[in-house]
Amino acid sequence: MRPSKRQPGELRRVSFERAVSMHAEGSCLIKFGNTHVLCTASLEERIPPWLKGQGRGWVTAEYGMLPRATTDRTRREASVGHQSGRTQEIQRLIGRALRAVVDLPKLGERQISIDCDVIQADGGTRTAAITGAWVALHDCIQWMKLRDMVKDGVLRDHVAAISCGLYNGTPVLDLDYLEDSNADADSNFVMTGAGGIVEVQGTAETTAFSQESFDALMALARKGIAELVELQKLTVA
Amino acid sequence: MRPSKRQPGELRRVSFERAVSMHAEGSCLIKFGNTHVLCTASLEERIPPWLKGQGRGWVTAEYGMLPRATTDRTRREASVGHQSGRTQEIQRLIGRALRAVVDLPKLGERQISIDCDVIQADGGTRTAAITGAWVALHDCIQWMKLRDMVKDGVLRDHVAAISCGLYNGTPVLDLDYLEDSNADADSNFVMTGAGGIVEVQGTAETTAFSQESFDALMALARKGIAELVELQKLTVA
Amino acid sequence: MRPSKRQPGELRRVSFERAVSMHAEGSCLIKFGNTHVLCTASLEERIPPWLKGQGRGWVTAEYGMLPRATTDRTRREASVGHQSGRTQEIQRLIGRALRAVVDLPKLGERQISIDCDVIQADGGTRTAAITGAWVALHDCIQWMKLRDMVKDGVLRDHVAAISCGLYNGTPVLDLDYLEDSNADADSNFVMTGAGGIVEVQGTAETTAFSQESFDALMALARKGIAELVELQKLTVA
Amino acid sequence: MRPSKRQPGELRRVSFERAVSMHAEGSCLIKFGNTHVLCTASLEERIPPWLKGQGRGWVTAEYGMLPRATTDRTRREASVGHQSGRTQEIQRLIGRALRAVVDLPKLGERQISIDCDVIQADGGTRTAAITGAWVALHDCIQWMKLRDMVKDGVLRDHVAAISCGLYNGTPVLDLDYLEDSNADADSNFVMTGAGGIVEVQGTAETTAFSQESFDALMALARKGIAELVELQKLTVA
Amino acid sequence: MRPSKRQPGELRRVSFERAVSMHAEGSCLIKFGNTHVLCTASLEERIPPWLKGQGRGWVTAEYGMLPRATTDRTRREASVGHQSGRTQEIQRLIGRALRAVVDLPKLGERQISIDCDVIQADGGTRTAAITGAWVALHDCIQWMKLRDMVKDGVLRDHVAAISCGLYNGTPVLDLDYLEDSNADADSNFVMTGAGGIVEVQGTAETTAFSQESFDALMALARKGIAELVELQKLTVA
Amino acid sequence: MRPSKRQPGELRRVSFERAVSMHAEGSCLIKFGNTHVLCTASLEERIPPWLKGQGRGWVTAEYGMLPRATTDRTRREASVGHQSGRTQEIQRLIGRALRAVVDLPKLGERQISIDCDVIQADGGTRTAAITGAWVALHDCIQWMKLRDMVKDGVLRDHVAAISCGLYNGTPVLDLDYLEDSNADADSNFVMTGAGGIVEVQGTAETTAFSQESFDALMALARKGIAELVELQKLTVA
Repeated sequence: MRPSKRQPGELRRVSFERAVSMHAEGSCLIKFGNTHVLCTASLEERIPPWLKGQGRGWVTAEYGMLPRATTDRTRREASVGHQSGRTQEIQRLIGRALRAVVDLPKLGERQISIDCDVIQADGGTRTAAITGAWVALHDCIQWMKLRDMVKDGVLRDHVAAISCGLYNGTPVLDLDYLEDSNADADSNFVMTGAGGIVEVQGTAETTAFSQESFDALMALARKGIAELVELQKLTVA
Repeated sequence: MRPSKRQPGELRRVSFERAVSMHAEGSCLIKFGNTHVLCTASLEERIPPWLKGQGRGWVTAEYGMLPRATTDRTRREASVGHQSGRTQEIQRLIGRALRAVVDLPKLGERQISIDCDVIQADGGTRTAAITGAWVALHDCIQWMKLRDMVKDGVLRDHVAAISCGLYNGTPVLDLDYLEDSNADADSNFVMTGAGGIVEVQGTAETTAFSQESFDALMALARKGIAELVELQKLTVA
Repeated sequence: MRPSKRQPGELRRVSFERAVSMHAEGSCLIKFGNTHVLCTASLEERIPPWLKGQGRGWVTAEYGMLPRATTDRTRREASVGHQSGRTQEIQRLIGRALRAVVDLPKLGERQISIDCDVIQADGGTRTAAITGAWVALHDCIQWMKLRDMVKDGVLRDHVAAISCGLYNGTPVLDLDYLEDSNADADSNFVMTGAGGIVEVQGTAETTAFSQESFDALMALARKGIAELVELQKLTVA
Repeated sequence: MRPSKRQPGELRRVSFERAVSMHAEGSCLIKFGNTHVLCTASLEERIPPWLKGQGRGWVTAEYGMLPRATTDRTRREASVGHQSGRTQEIQRLIGRALRAVVDLPKLGERQISIDCDVIQADGGTRTAAITGAWVALHDCIQWMKLRDMVKDGVLRDHVAAISCGLYNGTPVLDLDYLEDSNADADSNFVMTGAGGIVEVQGTAETTAFSQESFDALMALARKGIAELVELQKLTVA
Repeated sequence: MRPSKRQPGELRRVSFERAVSMHAEGSCLIKFGNTHVLCTASLEERIPPWLKGQGRGWVTAEYGMLPRATTDRTRREASVGHQSGRTQEIQRLIGRALRAVVDLPKLGERQISIDCDVIQADGGTRTAAITGAWVALHDCIQWMKLRDMVKDGVLRDHVAAISCGLYNGTPVLDLDYLEDSNADADSNFVMTGAGGIVEVQGTAETTAFSQESFDALMALARKGIAELVELQKLTVA
Repeated sequence: MRPSKRQPGELRRVSFERAVSMHAEGSCLIKFGNTHVLCTASLEERIPPWLKGQGRGWVTAEYGMLPRATTDRTRREASVGHQSGRTQEIQRLIGRALRAVVDLPKLGERQISIDCDVIQADGGTRTAAITGAWVALHDCIQWMKLRDMVKDGVLRDHVAAISCGLYNGTPVLDLDYLEDSNADADSNFVMTGAGGIVEVQGTAETTAFSQESFDALMALARKGIAELVELQKLTVA
């Protein structure tokens, strides 16, 4: 049995709160149980220098964690003087995940910057971030549509993410921190509403895992992401 | 008349929400109108090297702002690679303000780190931070008392802060962003529950102000801080 | 047909040159076609602070690229002042891959640092790095055995890595730079000699890929890694 | 009695030496007793990017301390790799103080950079810096007038600064290092020649101070600054 | 007798391997015995900002060392976050040495960046770097000539470098690491094919050396550099 | 004829002012004409980690330049965030020069840190720094002797430095900025009171120079340094 008492294929309670920021063009406070991530989308009338003149826009993401989002206080990256390798890895992942469902030429020569800040962490912060960021991005694009800045079709599909792992040999969905610390494998999946695979990250630091285990994790993830996409649809309906 | 339609000596709606973090020993989400600051207090069994062996504790603070807490997106300091002069100035101020009401020897050789993170900014973030940080600090010390780690008297008094300025020549209390941008002087006051002055910062970048104006600002601040202290008392009662 | 004229499941010409460094305890210059990576293993009688007193050793890795390893000159990271997110991502991957096949308690309280420096790049530098790093690590452990510093069983298995992608819709193995630039998906697989999965990284920046495609890529990778492991065996025989 | 044997309201011996730099457009070596600060004004035909096209100039300041200006050697900030929070706080203060008496539109689209470098420190470096910087700024503007670059009225007034504190309960003026280390409150005042308040900074780290004490400190400061302004007038006469 | 068993005026075995990089416009792997340095020349259609509009080109150099090029592993500068003083000193030296034999106006408004990366170090890395960099530079200029980008005369002469020292009181040429560690003086000479002196660096950290010794070292260097220039001629013939 | 109207072998007016710092154990303001360098010696009861337990002391140096020491304002290195390659080169040179005349074992396990800060620059700052630093070092060692911390013989000899160059083909001594900008070669010499060579740095960026020229420069330097050593003797007599 899982420490969280959840069934192997059961998500934590997931909630989305929209329009939580008075300034951002789109925003969402997403909760995967005790993991809370504030996602904002900022429209900027500029693009990275290497994109100039190509008639395409860009979506990028940054990720941060408040110092006491964690069990023990973590040093503030602004004070350390650089973002850790982990932070950079996660924010690159979020950006790629979102770009996979955006029609960049239709966005025009603009950038949408997504900020995902972990207010409280209990495992699965990157998957919650991606899932909530989609809502913030959606609302930012709506904001643009209302102002006739873009036409339909900029956002091509949903995208959501979930973690899976082997806990005491059993494949389980959406690990919280306690489960994650004792799991044999750590994997994260990002998929679209149509079920396409956007990103797969499976890591076995202590023991390698078998093809069968991996396939089971992916099947669980597919089911969990489908549920998340349904919740996104309800949220923005 | 003020853009906020408030009377010259009227605070914004102030609210305190305690215990908002599952991890921190003390926490408070404070709101001064649309300015929202999350304050957490983290107990750490270590002290700065230069304090070792003196039988005293320490209280320190860090300040941050989410990138889209502001009207336009601000660059993330972790990504820029250092904390701005403004950030350092504010976090030094918060730390001094709190230490003024803590009996450091009674705290023992431990450090309490206060993190003040601005979730949404609309003027007065530093004063909201100090006022909310006191509640987080209070609750952290309560947490220690319940575990017999400290005796009574660690926290000697309340401390709270407010800004004042001259708006169209009239002294006004607790400026929001719009008022602040058009005011002739920017001043921040930190005082204790007993009315002692902890910190005074008055700045006139464009025009110097008279002694009379300064005295009027301080009188307003004294009144506003007394109200904030009453609210703190209700909050932790 | 692939630009490289290779069959879909065909590796580039792979070669291993051992003992290329007069100083390192183990070293290997590995070539995957025109991708050349110099891997050295350095034995250090120290471990990371957080590991002290646990009776276990550590294996870590760093990755670098000579400025003109690439088609156009890349700025030197030492001159820029930090390692890029990509560099950190890759060196963390190499470290995890190697630790998956090392019995850390048997290593004793020591660290082996693997440096993978790309002398010339033509796609697949991270997979060549992992595959060559295993040989350097193997030779370093042999060096220790000859000096009775460790017993048998420190190195539990082989580990190797390869990239796969969809080129014009066809799954292909071991992409060179030209193929990689035009492929629809980028995926890297790390597996052990016994066929266990250590790391899976699949990324679709432009279009999501189907479950069938992903399974086909993984099957190709499994085959390619088995060939690389055979070559490793010949090399250290 | 004060360690310096001065009366409560007595300044240290103050001297100004002009034109001490062969290169700078204006310069002043100011001494407040054993505190010696070299102030230079550099005219630059450029302005900060955010000011462009507004027809206004800018005055900015930087502050530094030679490593052995202090009792014990302080680490060189250039070697540490960043300016401390204290340094940034002081240089921002100096800049604001000077801008309060400059008519920026009359300066034209140019920047005057003031460098205040502490050659020897014995308390009150920031107040000496501001007081001496005004002379350097004055001479720089004279230099410009002689070349018909500006008309009259760029420099609208004098500005000077002094510290005050409570020493054994008595308000005293212009604390040296020894007095400062044992005072109960640390406050700095910046005022114009006309007596306008430009900046007030009062800090009570250990005990809060009363309104009466604060008023007494400000009265002392007002008197001291008036004396400094008289000395500035004699200097540039 | 020298530890290397060489005669006082005898160079180590020197070899040059050209065109070792598939990407660089010119490249050379030079070996002075066990010291191996990879030199690449990269043509860039840009020049430093301060050179713009002067109709002249620029040659610059960067120097690096693989972490395990040395007896004990050296920390990677990209990970430390800056280039050491030694690295900067060497790369400035290499750049000056090469510019002394290039007709910069004839190069046109372009920059050639030379990267010298030490693959294995056994003393004399900077002199090997300069000597090999000349070959890379030569080949880069040939590459440009073949494309009619420059005319004859860009490269005015050869340049090469060697170290000398006093070993047990005897002047010796081209010290390896073991000899260098025990020598009384460390000196490096850079000269042209015509025998002109480009750079002299003599350093006596423990004991000052006499005029006679210095003259003897310079005579040895002159002879050694003449031999290196002959080898360069054979290499590019 | 030289722009300075000096004879080829004539030094600028040189002056030494001792004990200019109230805090430092030794200090000297040296002037080579309009080049003014403040040198302080700080005794520290610590040594670099790598020297511990060897019964020897250390002498190290840091070099800095006030921003407006130069004709045009130079950016402050503390604000830029690092010391330039030039700064590091110079401070390493000063340290080596001083260590060449100190008996480090007789100093005991202590460090003397020399700070050389250029107050005003007009060419030759590094040679003035070395020459003045010797006086500061001398006085620091005297300070120690008076407190019975060291015995005689710590300081074994004088050390001084001077620049030479070819101006219109004529070898000249002690170049000021204007001469230096137009000279064909830049060379710096450091020698002891006994005439031993400590450091030779000759650089020809535009044209290589002949053996005869170099020998002439060194002869001039020998004469100039002998004069500087005489002045040092008078200063500390």
